[in-house]
Amino acid sequence: MTSFRKELWFETKSRRAFINITPQVEAALNESGIKEGLCLVNTMHISASVFINDDERGLHADFERWLEALAPHEPVAQYRHNDTGEDNADAHLKRTIMGREVVVAITGGKLDFGPWEPIFYEEFDGGRKKRVLGKIVGE
Amino acid sequence: MTSFRKELWFETKSRRAFINITPQVEAALNESGIKEGLCLVNTMHISASVFINDDERGLHADFERWLEALAPHEPVAQYRHNDTGEDNADAHLKRTIMGREVVVAITGGKLDFGPWEPIFYEEFDGGRKKRVLGKIVGE
Amino acid sequence: MTSFRKELWFETKSRRAFINITPQVEAALNESGIKEGLCLVNTMHISASVFINDDERGLHADFERWLEALAPHEPVAQYRHNDTGEDNADAHLKRTIMGREVVVAITGGKLDFGPWEPIFYEEFDGGRKKRVLGKIVGE
Repeated sequence: MTSFRKELWFETKSRRAFINITPQVEAALNESGIKEGLCLVNTMHISASVFINDDERGLHADFERWLEALAPHEPVAQYRHNDTGEDNADAHLKRTIMGREVVVAITGGKLDFGPWEPIFYEEFDGGRKKRVLGKIVGE
Repeated sequence: MTSFRKELWFETKSRRAFINITPQVEAALNESGIKEGLCLVNTMHISASVFINDDERGLHADFERWLEALAPHEPVAQYRHNDTGEDNADAHLKRTIMGREVVVAITGGKLDFGPWEPIFYEEFDGGRKKRVLGKIVGE
Repeated sequence: MTSFRKELWFETKSRRAFINITPQVEAALNESGIKEGLCLVNTMHISASVFINDDERGLHADFERWLEALAPHEPVAQYRHNDTGEDNADAHLKRTIMGREVVVAITGGKLDFGPWEPIFYEEFDGGRKKRVLGKIVGE
């Protein structure tokens, strides 16, 4: 069994953003040399998500509007977490809906995806450097 | 380390459906011969889910009603994704709630489940052939 | 490849509760002796969750209020699942939002976490003994 670890760094200028990180995950897989196994991709922060869904701008606008309705940013005083001086309680809730991680099968040295399965990093509290962890286990 | 891959195919006539796929996953595990490890089960489509919860008809009716309230199918024009000619934006949102994948421990050649843990495929945009991927890694 | 299995048992007196289980998962990892690999942590029950988010009391109060708004416990008669004699349909829905499992990378014999990534068990239907499964695969 071999394992391979790679940190991917991102910094978004906006508070919220979608980034298709499939190319970086594929590059990590190629670097690992692993042909069969499992690839874990998780955000290392609790105000961001990693998920798989369509790379389509309209859908991302729908996600934005939907998440804002389910867990509104304002008024910030509605959240007890924000009593600590933070203003990102909504980011923790939104990340819960979208997820922390994906696990992807590795087959024949490739990410074993269906026809429309890009991996996204979603930022809910940007403006600083944040990390995604890729961990590949196999042989 | 050994790995085993199996595609499971489904076609539902209705737009939405729940299918208990535990027997197919168990059959794949038996075919693999793997006794200890991890089993990833994920839908290969972004308008469907794989999840673990109760095999109880009343609960499925509750899920249906609940997901329709959280992400209504109609009016389809409320979603920017549907401007592309699709009418399945709600399916992408519903699948986000229910999840893309489960990872199940393999112990002693069996799916290492609690007392009530069947694996379900949930279809949100049926009427065509769609796939679930099982990938088992272990020995 | 080595694998290691550990059951963690919990009994909460209240119906709902958050328990930081990171120390127990770290102890299991140390007991396993595994240095590189993947660690699956999942609840074995379908009315409870395992997730990663902040260990902050205000945020937990926000989660409680938010989940109760998304999937209210009462009136219990609003759920078809409760026609079976249960009163925990809402617990199944809440657990769906919070998730069944997390997969954590193991690097250098440690849980490979970002700066604020504790693992929580969340109980939605307590008052009896329930289990979390840790399964570690690696070497």
